[in-house]
This record gives sequence, C-alpha cells and structure tokens, in this order.
Amino acid sequence: MYNRVINFAAGPSTLPLEVLEEIREDLMNYKGTGMSVMEMSHRSKTYLSIFDDTKKTLRRVMSIPDDYEILFIQGGATEQFSAIPLNLLAGGKGYYLVTGSFANKAYKEALRYGDAICLYDGSAKSYRHIPNENEYVLPKEASYVYLCSNNTIYGTEWQTYPDTKDIPLVADMSSDIMSRPIDISKFGLIYAGAQKNMGIAGLAAVIIRKDLIGKHSSITPTLMQYSIQAKGDSMYNTPPTFSIYVLGLMAKWVEKMGGLEAMQKRNEEKAKLLYDYLDQSSFYEGRADRESRSMMNVSFFTPSKELDDKFVKESIEAGMSNLKGHREAGGLRASIYNAMTIDNVKVLIEFMKKFEKENA
Amino acid sequence: MYNRVINFAAGPSTLPLEVLEEIREDLMNYKGTGMSVMEMSHRSKTYLSIFDDTKKTLRRVMSIPDDYEILFIQGGATEQFSAIPLNLLAGGKGYYLVTGSFANKAYKEALRYGDAICLYDGSAKSYRHIPNENEYVLPKEASYVYLCSNNTIYGTEWQTYPDTKDIPLVADMSSDIMSRPIDISKFGLIYAGAQKNMGIAGLAAVIIRKDLIGKHSSITPTLMQYSIQAKGDSMYNTPPTFSIYVLGLMAKWVEKMGGLEAMQKRNEEKAKLLYDYLDQSSFYEGRADRESRSMMNVSFFTPSKELDDKFVKESIEAGMSNLKGHREAGGLRASIYNAMTIDNVKVLIEFMKKFEKENA
Repeated sequence: MYNRVINFAAGPSTLPLEVLEEIREDLMNYKGTGMSVMEMSHRSKTYLSIFDDTKKTLRRVMSIPDDYEILFIQGGATEQFSAIPLNLLAGGKGYYLVTGSFANKAYKEALRYGDAICLYDGSAKSYRHIPNENEYVLPKEASYVYLCSNNTIYGTEWQTYPDTKDIPLVADMSSDIMSRPIDISKFGLIYAGAQKNMGIAGLAAVIIRKDLIGKHSSITPTLMQYSIQAKGDSMYNTPPTFSIYVLGLMAKWVEKMGGLEAMQKRNEEKAKLLYDYLDQSSFYEGRADRESRSMMNVSFFTPSKELDDKFVKESIEAGMSNLKGHREAGGLRASIYNAMTIDNVKVLIEFMKKFEKENA
Repeated sequence: MYNRVINFAAGPSTLPLEVLEEIREDLMNYKGTGMSVMEMSHRSKTYLSIFDDTKKTLRRVMSIPDDYEILFIQGGATEQFSAIPLNLLAGGKGYYLVTGSFANKAYKEALRYGDAICLYDGSAKSYRHIPNENEYVLPKEASYVYLCSNNTIYGTEWQTYPDTKDIPLVADMSSDIMSRPIDISKFGLIYAGAQKNMGIAGLAAVIIRKDLIGKHSSITPTLMQYSIQAKGDSMYNTPPTFSIYVLGLMAKWVEKMGGLEAMQKRNEEKAKLLYDYLDQSSFYEGRADRESRSMMNVSFFTPSKELDDKFVKESIEAGMSNLKGHREAGGLRASIYNAMTIDNVKVLIEFMKKFEKENA
C-alpha cells in the first residue's frame, strides 16, 4: 500500500505501521486542537496531557514501581555516559562490565570523572561473549555497577543480570528496552535512547530509583543534573516534545499488542527463526557465542567479505535495507526490534536461503 | 481546510502550513525510499543527503561564511548555557549582557565554571530595555561577550549589536534567528533552539567560528565538546534526525519565500501593524521600551489582570491560542515568528479592537 521496504536498521529503525499512520493522521490538527503536536507549547494543557499520558503508559507497560522516577532527557544514551558518573559516583567507585563498544565508551567517560574500574573486558573475545557470574567478581561496596544489556554492534545480550544486592545496578537498555519484561526493582537506574524500541532519535528515557537522585558532583552541568530534571518533571527546559509524543504512541502500541510478555514471545519467535536457520547452515556463521545471543540484533557472516557485500547489494534489490554490519564489526546484521514483524523475518530467511543456494 | 487555530505560542510554535504538508506527504515513505525519515539510519546514504542538504541550505540562507562550522546539538539552548563557558572560557573572562531571564540563566551557569562578569543588568528596569552603547563598557580583553539577541519572555530585541572588535561575540538567537539578515562575521558564536524559527524542539543549531573550536576545559562532557561535534560532523552520537530534517524544510521555506530580506520585510510589517495599533490605543499598553521592541514577541497589557484573563479566554473562543504572557512576566504576548502570516496578525488586531470597544 505504501510501497515500503523491510528496514533492518539498528537505530533509528523501523516503526510500526499503525504508529506512523497515527502520526500522519494527527499531523495537521491533533485531535481537534487545531494544531500539530510539533507546534504545541510544552506548557499547554493539551501537551501536558500527552506528556502525562506518555509517562503513565510507560510506567504501566514496564511495571515501573512508584519509587522510581521517569525522566525524558535530550542527548541520547551518549549523554548518559557522562551523566551517570557525574550524578552517581559521588566520590565512590563505579564498576563497569565492558561487553561492547558502547559500554567501553561509558567506562572511558567515567574515568574522566572519578574512580571507574573495569570489572570485565570483553574485547579479548572480540565482544562475542557475555560473561557469567564466574567470570567477574562483584565488589562488596560501590557507587554502582554498570552494564549495557544489549550490545547492538556485536549482537550480544545479557540473558540474566548480575545480582548486585545493595549496590545500584545501572543498565544501558537502549537496544532492548520494552522487548521483554524486566524486574525494575533489581536496578538503580535504567536508561535508553528512544530510537529503537521507543520511537525516534533525540530522546533518552531515564528510569531512576528516587533515593539516587541528588548526589551529583558540583561540576555537573545544570541540565544534566537528575535532581533538576526530576524537580522540573523533565521540563526544566523545553523538552523534545514530538519525540516524547512518539514514545507514548510506541508504549501504547506495545500495550495493545499484549504488553511485554507478548512482545517477548514475538521477539523470541523472530530470533529463533533466524538463529535456527543460521545454526543448520554451513554457509552462514553467527557472530555471537550461542549463550550470549541478542534477541534484537542478529549478527552473522557469509564465508567471505566479498559475499557479505554481494549479500547487502542483492538484499537491497530484494526490498530489504540496512543489513550491512556496523562499520566497526563488519559482516551482516539484522536488527529485529519490536516493530519488525514475523512475516518480514521470514522474507529475510527466504532470501538468505536463496542466496546460500546460489553462492555456496 | 484543516480547521486550524491561529497559534501565537512562544515556542514550540506554529509551523508554515506548506512545511507541515510536506512532512505529512513524506511520512510513510520519504520520496520513494520506502521508509519514513524517522526510521532512517543516520549513517544511510539517503539520510546523509538530507543532512548535508540541510547544512548547505542553512549556510546559503543565512550567508554563513566558510570559516564557520554549523553544528546540530541536542539539549536545546539551555545546554549551551553550560557548553559556552565550558568550551570558550579557557581560563579567561566571559562578559554577560543580561537583558532577560534566559541571559541571566546563562550568566549564572557561567559563574559555576569560571570568571563570569555581568556587564549590564536589565532586571532593575524589569527587562523592558535593551542598553545602548553608553550604558555598558565593553572590556578590552575577554574570552567572549555574551548576549541574548531577543528576549522571548519580555518582548525585547537588540536592534544593533555591540561592536566587540577582536573579542568573540556570543549570541543566543533562539527566538530571532532567520528573522532578518545578520552579518555572521561579527560573531564568534551564534546558537538557537530550533523550536521557533527553525522547526521543532529537541535541537539547537550552533554556528561557530572555526578558530574557537578546541578550547574546552578538561571537565567538559565529551558530547558537549564543540571539537567532538565538529570532528564527527554532529554525528558523534545519533543526532535528532527528524528535527534536523524539519530544520532543513524550514530553511528551504525561508529561501522560497525570498530569503532573509523578504522575511525581515514580512516580519517588520507584522510587528508594525501590532505596535502601531498598541501605540494609538489608550486601552492597551506595550511592555517593552519602544526602542527595544522585539519583532518576534509582542508583549502587552490590558488595563487589569482581570481583563488580561478575559482577553485570553475570549481569544481562545475566537480561534486564537497561546496569547497569555509568560508566567514570569504576566500580561499578554503574541509571538509572531516567521511562520505567522500577516493575515493572521490582522485577525488578532480585529479581535483586539473589538475587545477594547467592549471593555474600555
């Protein structure tokens, strides 16, 4: 109907058709208000009701307890690499489980602001692996323990989270938030850039246990202080109003689809289809260790760099896009976030079969 | 046709109908690419061409010389309150011309990071006034001199800028950028939140003379370093892709309307209609000193707080919105940015006449 391609981009990434249609429907005149959401004062009654509804829906869908604050912050996940040590280190130590490139960036940024310690370095295994509890020793005391729950570039994902007991666990969930139910109470802080499962780029959601707010160091830029954002209900300055509205539509869509349990079932089915196919093939090879595999980003190789390139080229001709791996990692990658349908994953597998047959 | 209201919001604010229509037209499938701009990888060929085109159009429309870099940064203008001292103070002094609430916030933030000096404090005159060159003494040496070119809340605007000679002049142009031609070469740095004349919230454009890049202090968060943003062409992290796209549409719209000279003419005409009406009326009173008046935000009062409230209520019934003044300043305010048409300003004046007649 719209002649759309199947978009396997790692983020920004494909959105549910229903969400795009709703955005378009309301674009010139949002529900009789006479203006687009983009044109609304962030202090107007209508926008505040969109904003509150977005927060409430997210809280409901993710089962966020009342002792956690939801903040909407600009700067994406990368800004949080700085904000976390600046707000949480408080003269203590931050321990980093470095399982990928973004966790490493977060660790390097923390080193600039205080005592940051690398608890596990996955680079020796080319970031193919997520450590189990025997591969690192959790500290007895710390300001926080940090991890990146899903490594978009390498296609790995934490299956079970470390039990850090009284130490706040901080997680970058940019690429797997809302993909499965999680027990928020096990975390001190969860954050995510919105451009994968939560809508469009230019926004990060920060879910923080309220007692952790207010410990920022004196050099923290005002806008980066969680206490300022909490006090102003994310409106200390003009927030990215349209991105927040889209986040609300995404959360409502997840709810309509049956919530996080249903999302997990759908995501597991998609990932299983792809990984099962990879495992029986002698042509393709998965990148990640089997027990570390991501449900969101399926990373794999053909037998050669030349065939990888050919795969990308022919997949585009077949109506699929963004299957090229990240420039840092090479190979191929299919990102299959919440919005990717099972049918479209099947189209990819059919293409992979055909390509294997023609090039084996 | 769309049953839209006349939206006088101070920001986010009304957008040109043609721009909204173009966004809607391309929402499900941008020019045959098979996806929405919101869904595009920021590294994809199509998005990079939108991005480059946006930068080029802005450079052309604003006549930005080649020795100036254009950066697209999240966090809005408020983040720049921190970024400016963190990037430009470099152990020197920053002088602030405080003509309004936002300039004052910028000054207060700079005090946290180094030697900031208030060169002019407009609060004694309730921010009704923009100083002339006899009302402050420019320093002989400084890291920069800072001003806010248009004070949205109080409706004042710099008519001519101070000549700071070799000292970089830094200007927050959030609410009057692209409203009239300016000589960029007189400035060290110009920045603006996008949600007034440049599109939607969640993006600031920073125009910086290249030799000023790279002087940041060691505590500056990585994402806030102009050198990192310049080196990565504003893609050190995922930029707010959709907001940048809308900025491009806005710049193209200005170009189509005849460029900044034509914009100035149109804006002068709108402002003159309103101010001339205010000046002949004994019912309404303008807030700003006459020689300090803003072309973008026309701030005024009826004879009483009660009548102000009545004005707001009845203006909404008459199909206009957001004429209430900022909560800090009270009174009434009509923001008439680039996208506001002359015809809609005339509708407001007719309403004002009727209201005066009924309540004088």
